[in-house]
Amino acid sequence: MGLKIINITSSFPKNFETIKNLKKSEGWEVDRVFNATGINKRYISSSKEDVLNLSIKSAKKILNRNNRKKVGFLIFVSQTSPYRFPSLSCVLQDKLDLPKDIFAIDVNMGCSGYIYAMKIASSLNSLDNKKKFGLIICADTYTKFINKKNKSCRPIFSDASTTTLVKIYKDSKNEKYSFGVDGKGSKDLFLSNNSTNMFMNGPKIAIFTLNEIPNFLEGFMKKFKINRDKVKYFCFHQASKYICNNISRKLRLRNDQIFNNYQKYGNTISSSIPLIFKDLIEKKKVKKNDVIIACGFGVGLSWGVVKFRW
Amino acid sequence: MGLKIINITSSFPKNFETIKNLKKSEGWEVDRVFNATGINKRYISSSKEDVLNLSIKSAKKILNRNNRKKVGFLIFVSQTSPYRFPSLSCVLQDKLDLPKDIFAIDVNMGCSGYIYAMKIASSLNSLDNKKKFGLIICADTYTKFINKKNKSCRPIFSDASTTTLVKIYKDSKNEKYSFGVDGKGSKDLFLSNNSTNMFMNGPKIAIFTLNEIPNFLEGFMKKFKINRDKVKYFCFHQASKYICNNISRKLRLRNDQIFNNYQKYGNTISSSIPLIFKDLIEKKKVKKNDVIIACGFGVGLSWGVVKFRW
Repeated sequence: MGLKIINITSSFPKNFETIKNLKKSEGWEVDRVFNATGINKRYISSSKEDVLNLSIKSAKKILNRNNRKKVGFLIFVSQTSPYRFPSLSCVLQDKLDLPKDIFAIDVNMGCSGYIYAMKIASSLNSLDNKKKFGLIICADTYTKFINKKNKSCRPIFSDASTTTLVKIYKDSKNEKYSFGVDGKGSKDLFLSNNSTNMFMNGPKIAIFTLNEIPNFLEGFMKKFKINRDKVKYFCFHQASKYICNNISRKLRLRNDQIFNNYQKYGNTISSSIPLIFKDLIEKKKVKKNDVIIACGFGVGLSWGVVKFRW
Repeated sequence: MGLKIINITSSFPKNFETIKNLKKSEGWEVDRVFNATGINKRYISSSKEDVLNLSIKSAKKILNRNNRKKVGFLIFVSQTSPYRFPSLSCVLQDKLDLPKDIFAIDVNMGCSGYIYAMKIASSLNSLDNKKKFGLIICADTYTKFINKKNKSCRPIFSDASTTTLVKIYKDSKNEKYSFGVDGKGSKDLFLSNNSTNMFMNGPKIAIFTLNEIPNFLEGFMKKFKINRDKVKYFCFHQASKYICNNISRKLRLRNDQIFNNYQKYGNTISSSIPLIFKDLIEKKKVKKNDVIIACGFGVGLSWGVVKFRW
């Protein structure tokens, strides 16, 4: 089994905040914050915007009369649905006018969710509907659960949706995955169902990430005999400048192997990695057979990596 | 790829209600209700019981020092987590002392969720951790969102958790799946995140089920040339007596091909089908190679079926 990314579309809330907005607020060490995060612009959903209508918007940009019929599965990745039930993948089947004979699930995962969804998608080559196309729709609106004085979260998180149209193949020679979980850190990035203000222990999450993820990636490359010099791009979850730079430094990557866009989108959770892929496509930075490594990590704590050929 | 169910364990809240409790309440047409639902006993979680501790309880009954190390994945199916994030599959990795190199996801699905989880599990034969065992943990506490006067929901829904220990094989000759979604019915069984009382349009859900599911199963058996007479058991989501009886009648099943346990457990959502399997195992009603068809349907609206050999 293997996966080919056909195209990626995105949608963002209308409103955004820049680092200048924080300068106007009280009690923020703006320069220190910006130095660590590197994030200039963050999208903030209004009360009328949620993961459902953002997802409809991103998906409608990719679907047309022709490809809609070929969709055999829909994986919806989010932690911020306005509903407990039903699954939004079911609602989206209707709103996007998709066939009824699809495999549709909601996956409640955060920063590593896209890699998990890619693995599930690439494993679905035996669906009885025989359709080889599928959608991975990611959407999160963490900012709904961040109050204005939440110092660790407000400068980081941003709302977005992405839709990835994929095709599955029987051949997976070149696609490798690895996953990991450490529930000991489950309270370090946390939101109970009746809370309106999420908690993040930034320093602890940073220490976990910088201890665990570079080693994890070194082990992954060694296990599958991947020559790091031949990897065109390393696409990391866009946690922040501090995290992304330090992972790249620890892995001794060349500057031309790194592509970041946290500056203009912030940390969009599940949409973070597809937004990198989308920018790579639009800027014509990837061509067929380029080797890509993408790694998601964070809330859970949970992490996942994929190596594939574009 | 194929799946073998090794064992199933369950846990229930301490408190329960029987049909007699409804008799003592005001305004209930108890005889009419019981005639339609057939449900005598329903488990009601207390404020101290949630899907997390119920799941720890059901999982600890199946895990031991030996099999714990062989677990390569964990699929957690629920719509009633006390957290928005992190995923409870991550929390369970820690609480159950499972290895860190596992594939762990939360799937937000209801009555069809177990069949979807079986399909995902059976597709995971290529995990890089090479471990062939996995857990499907289901848990729901719908009763937390049903007030005492909710006529359509209170007599039906019940809280439970089940843990299924599965093994994956490369051979899947005998395992067949089919899935379906109709988001047009998404508001017929609905709970928004800020509501404390769920809504079910019972008649509409019943009409959908009795129109859609028997035809879906007829099509499934025809497509995969399954001789219905040779199916040992048809295991339906335990929605209610009315639903289960009418599906069986429409499919012209023999009485000995049907196994129901809604009477003593109620409708436990995601745990409904594994609770049937568990009873079949305990009552020694299934032996190796028996053909089983299991079908989940409901909230979404979403449905799924699997045919496999025990």
